[in-house]
Amino acid sequence: MIRFNNDYNRGAFSDIMQALSEDACQSHAGYGTDDWCDKASDTIRKLIHRKDADIWYFPGATQANYVLIARALTSVQSVVCADTGHINAHEAASIENTGHKILELPNKEGKIDADQVKKVAEAYYGEEAEYLTEPKLVYISFPTEQGTIYSKEELKNLSLVCREFGMYLFVDGARLPYGLGASNNDVTLEDLALYTDAFYLGGTKCGALFGEALVLLNKDLKPRFKAYMKQNGAVMAKGWLMGLMFHTMLSNGEYFEASKRADQYAMQIRAAFEEKKIPLMADSYTNQQFVILSDENADRLSEDFVFEDCGRDERGRIARFCTSWATSEEEVEKLISVIQEL
Amino acid sequence: MIRFNNDYNRGAFSDIMQALSEDACQSHAGYGTDDWCDKASDTIRKLIHRKDADIWYFPGATQANYVLIARALTSVQSVVCADTGHINAHEAASIENTGHKILELPNKEGKIDADQVKKVAEAYYGEEAEYLTEPKLVYISFPTEQGTIYSKEELKNLSLVCREFGMYLFVDGARLPYGLGASNNDVTLEDLALYTDAFYLGGTKCGALFGEALVLLNKDLKPRFKAYMKQNGAVMAKGWLMGLMFHTMLSNGEYFEASKRADQYAMQIRAAFEEKKIPLMADSYTNQQFVILSDENADRLSEDFVFEDCGRDERGRIARFCTSWATSEEEVEKLISVIQEL
Amino acid sequence: MIRFNNDYNRGAFSDIMQALSEDACQSHAGYGTDDWCDKASDTIRKLIHRKDADIWYFPGATQANYVLIARALTSVQSVVCADTGHINAHEAASIENTGHKILELPNKEGKIDADQVKKVAEAYYGEEAEYLTEPKLVYISFPTEQGTIYSKEELKNLSLVCREFGMYLFVDGARLPYGLGASNNDVTLEDLALYTDAFYLGGTKCGALFGEALVLLNKDLKPRFKAYMKQNGAVMAKGWLMGLMFHTMLSNGEYFEASKRADQYAMQIRAAFEEKKIPLMADSYTNQQFVILSDENADRLSEDFVFEDCGRDERGRIARFCTSWATSEEEVEKLISVIQEL
Amino acid sequence: MIRFNNDYNRGAFSDIMQALSEDACQSHAGYGTDDWCDKASDTIRKLIHRKDADIWYFPGATQANYVLIARALTSVQSVVCADTGHINAHEAASIENTGHKILELPNKEGKIDADQVKKVAEAYYGEEAEYLTEPKLVYISFPTEQGTIYSKEELKNLSLVCREFGMYLFVDGARLPYGLGASNNDVTLEDLALYTDAFYLGGTKCGALFGEALVLLNKDLKPRFKAYMKQNGAVMAKGWLMGLMFHTMLSNGEYFEASKRADQYAMQIRAAFEEKKIPLMADSYTNQQFVILSDENADRLSEDFVFEDCGRDERGRIARFCTSWATSEEEVEKLISVIQEL
Repeated sequence: MIRFNNDYNRGAFSDIMQALSEDACQSHAGYGTDDWCDKASDTIRKLIHRKDADIWYFPGATQANYVLIARALTSVQSVVCADTGHINAHEAASIENTGHKILELPNKEGKIDADQVKKVAEAYYGEEAEYLTEPKLVYISFPTEQGTIYSKEELKNLSLVCREFGMYLFVDGARLPYGLGASNNDVTLEDLALYTDAFYLGGTKCGALFGEALVLLNKDLKPRFKAYMKQNGAVMAKGWLMGLMFHTMLSNGEYFEASKRADQYAMQIRAAFEEKKIPLMADSYTNQQFVILSDENADRLSEDFVFEDCGRDERGRIARFCTSWATSEEEVEKLISVIQEL
Repeated sequence: MIRFNNDYNRGAFSDIMQALSEDACQSHAGYGTDDWCDKASDTIRKLIHRKDADIWYFPGATQANYVLIARALTSVQSVVCADTGHINAHEAASIENTGHKILELPNKEGKIDADQVKKVAEAYYGEEAEYLTEPKLVYISFPTEQGTIYSKEELKNLSLVCREFGMYLFVDGARLPYGLGASNNDVTLEDLALYTDAFYLGGTKCGALFGEALVLLNKDLKPRFKAYMKQNGAVMAKGWLMGLMFHTMLSNGEYFEASKRADQYAMQIRAAFEEKKIPLMADSYTNQQFVILSDENADRLSEDFVFEDCGRDERGRIARFCTSWATSEEEVEKLISVIQEL
Repeated sequence: MIRFNNDYNRGAFSDIMQALSEDACQSHAGYGTDDWCDKASDTIRKLIHRKDADIWYFPGATQANYVLIARALTSVQSVVCADTGHINAHEAASIENTGHKILELPNKEGKIDADQVKKVAEAYYGEEAEYLTEPKLVYISFPTEQGTIYSKEELKNLSLVCREFGMYLFVDGARLPYGLGASNNDVTLEDLALYTDAFYLGGTKCGALFGEALVLLNKDLKPRFKAYMKQNGAVMAKGWLMGLMFHTMLSNGEYFEASKRADQYAMQIRAAFEEKKIPLMADSYTNQQFVILSDENADRLSEDFVFEDCGRDERGRIARFCTSWATSEEEVEKLISVIQEL
Repeated sequence: MIRFNNDYNRGAFSDIMQALSEDACQSHAGYGTDDWCDKASDTIRKLIHRKDADIWYFPGATQANYVLIARALTSVQSVVCADTGHINAHEAASIENTGHKILELPNKEGKIDADQVKKVAEAYYGEEAEYLTEPKLVYISFPTEQGTIYSKEELKNLSLVCREFGMYLFVDGARLPYGLGASNNDVTLEDLALYTDAFYLGGTKCGALFGEALVLLNKDLKPRFKAYMKQNGAVMAKGWLMGLMFHTMLSNGEYFEASKRADQYAMQIRAAFEEKKIPLMADSYTNQQFVILSDENADRLSEDFVFEDCGRDERGRIARFCTSWATSEEEVEKLISVIQEL
């Protein structure tokens, strides 16, 4: 059985495993105050051309999302996001658990646009009614939960409306390099650093054993940030593990290359499905491909592959096929050959 | 510089590093539903002789503490613990952040006793006053934050008073094997499984890269436990990493042996301090030794060693010297030789 | 200027004012443990034919809503309600502030139906996914925020689906007697006591100075309820004031009669609007009438009356005209005469 | 039976009752945006000589306490108060329920002093450790829960240490006029406005049916304050009731006179106890007197009077005798005559 169900089913880049082994007998300062974290953070600051950015390492993405939001908002402020946003649909109400309402907007292939956000902002800021909470932060995912990406123009427009109304723009980058590596992408790391107030470079799904590197750009978000992390159990004792992993995969470039390759594999798989007239759920150019399978086809594919069951619509079973930094050419060829025989 | 400042300044047992490397090319089911976690959990259930226990893996101890407590309590229930308890003094009010009051009791060398707990329980349960919160869970650390341990008798008495009043007994075991391995210890893993409602086997400080294995014994705590973990970002995508690490170090016995050795080293260091009439803060037989140093002695030791600065009392600087699963005989000899020359 | 903007712009029934004056020199037990509360609660228990009900008095409806919900739910459970529900749209995210997600359903004239609830319940209870919160409580308003009411059949069906899936049904009765008194109503107080787990009889909008009488029916909601109230500042020191007011207006029947009269007045006003072909927003038979006015008509009505501005749609300005227990025949006649001249 | 158990066992000043009756047929704007609240707030601003103060009316004191604190603090900030502080000992963990830790200081007759606060502040601000929460607000009660009061000097010193470390000083004034009217008091309303960031004038215990008037002085606390109130159900629909009551009793002076008279009565009662060598718990010059009674004396007094049972110490039963704005000369004489016969 080959796992195409997600992008977090295998360990880490071999360079990372080797670096970890070599480092195992070294001792380090705790809680992220070590040299590896310093190195990784410098590397990130250079990549995004923002010397002033604060970088923080989280074990997982749910924590990165809700801790940033808990830090950014008062209890009478709320989050705006797509109804399909990860924080709204997959994280067990972690945001509400910290006391904040999510104002969900109907998505278009996983995305929301500046006009939708503007309407919400105008409705509130037009009257500052005390019976409503202030929509203070816009959360988007890049790529989205459906594999789609925002264009530079779309990102810029979201940024402009946020700045007009004094709202934060926060980008969930759990799969960031898969977005950056997509053939239809025109957004760069520097754009993200320019247009957002905070975003993160995912590690868990992109070649590290675990870890997300959060980039804080807006200075209002920086004071006492580590206390919020600590309060939510997000400061790892052996923080250097994440510093080592991010430094390794960012400085050797594998972080970006492996994701790009995964995107290309995904497009080959997509092409195979399209050739068979198997419908797609969204126009994704990244590593996640959502297709609608007949029961027969789903059963056939299940014999050799693990893929994610995403429910049903009236046309059939919705299935996610996901490549990753670790996916091999052979695995892809095997999958395509089975698709072709459907 | 040799680090004696804590027990989480080095990576992991070499057996663990090797197992991780060998496993790196395997794919696994996500979120702790994999074979490694199953194996590790079976191993733990056998060690504690409780087939019915639920085992959950947390990336870190702060999460394990506050998620268990959030699961156990309603918002009108509170926690009883020592004023020096880790949740009260070191975790940035994570418990209050989830809405619960901590009723702190004055510690004796880091410990509280059954009589103290009984008084709190009687005061509340005598009247069930609506202006007070119900003291529903007793939190202790084994060993404590000062390196001391509870005897089997003390643990049993705490357990009895908890059962009398319908309270949970929860043991923070971030350093559990250092307690079990102490020369004055008479508590076994089976005792913990008998006398508590939940406890955990620490990984981060005891030879794993990270991770804590929480053992849920009381059936009232089990339903929907994973949703609480998810809501607080405590379910790791690559949960198998923790399964692999716990299985490895528990089944080869190194988890217990290395900690016991660390305790023995700590006692040698303690003896060296005592010989020099350097006062101890607490009567610790575990890997943490708190001593009171003159400025001169502290400065001398700082030349070669990193130790933890714990403030001052009227007698001088309070310093923690901590051995770990990774401490070597040479390091200990080096430290002792410097102490002898003070 | 005559206020038709809401039903809480005047003090209280004259019988209540007199009873308060007569009682002013008496001393009472505090925090609702007095004779007046006992009397009022007995009166309510008789009206609903449920001797087992617990009755609690809240100063205001927002508190009654969120405290009941905080009591009913764990942090991994959520509320289902109409998108227009008062707790979702008018109470500054009080529910999310206590840590709970609201799953909003699209309303039909302010209402939701059993099928909608069933779909949500099935989606969750079909898999009990740990990344979702459990939809444990259904909140409806009777009458709704648009003045419409549920029929006995609709209420029963909601109740059945709730019982099927183990969910609570909670009815916000801030305007309860206006619903009971509507010409199209077939729901009785006994029906509410039969079909719901908790509901309240509004006082603030129905003839008392303030206060809501919450009826707890499901025994799972009863233990320690007062502690939740206390924790949220909802236990009034002089609780007897609410006991006195509810007892007075319930036992003399004015609570029901005055609301019924207000409904009749509202229907006369509605008829006047309809005669003028002024469109209604919803088919309301209760004291709230929502109409869509041209700017010209709105301006003309503003000269003599205060009404509530509810924004705009493409047809014009949405205005609420609200009668109350205190509305007089003359005021209604005056309004109708102006409408007729539009 | 005469009630001396508390100061909230009777309705309201007769002037208030009359004003309420006269106003009953008037209609008003809702949610505190009415003329009565404007008048009352102007009256308060004049009394404290602070035109810039924002005034907000709360139904009860627990709400006033926790909403102010929720507004003032982020989730990584905490409250400093006496262990006997009302928010710590009588309000069902309402502060922790909103996510904040209370750092309790040992009281001296209900009070804390500037040195104690300074020590806490220095410990934190010396290192801004991320594992601690920031002690950002100091809460005191005037008078305290034991009936004692702060001198102007003590208040000023608390204020200075708060300003030095950037902390807020908040005074719970649920019994404020009983403190101002005490024979040993040298604090004025203007002093409170000068030395604190927020305080309130209690209504519930001082002659109103209910209500507390919160005075916001520090401009950092003002933005969006009403949204916090709304979110916690503290904005009364008929807010004008509180405006009317505060305006009435403040402008006719009865608020201050009746409390002063109650203090004098309390001192007569105290003198009677002292003559009988019955020990006092605290050196109170206000309306609350705590004495230690033998069982025999307690039983004798219970025959004619209701007083509050506050537990036991080694000397006997602790009892609170409380006069109020409504206590009559006859009631006091009756009590004294019985004390004299003990």
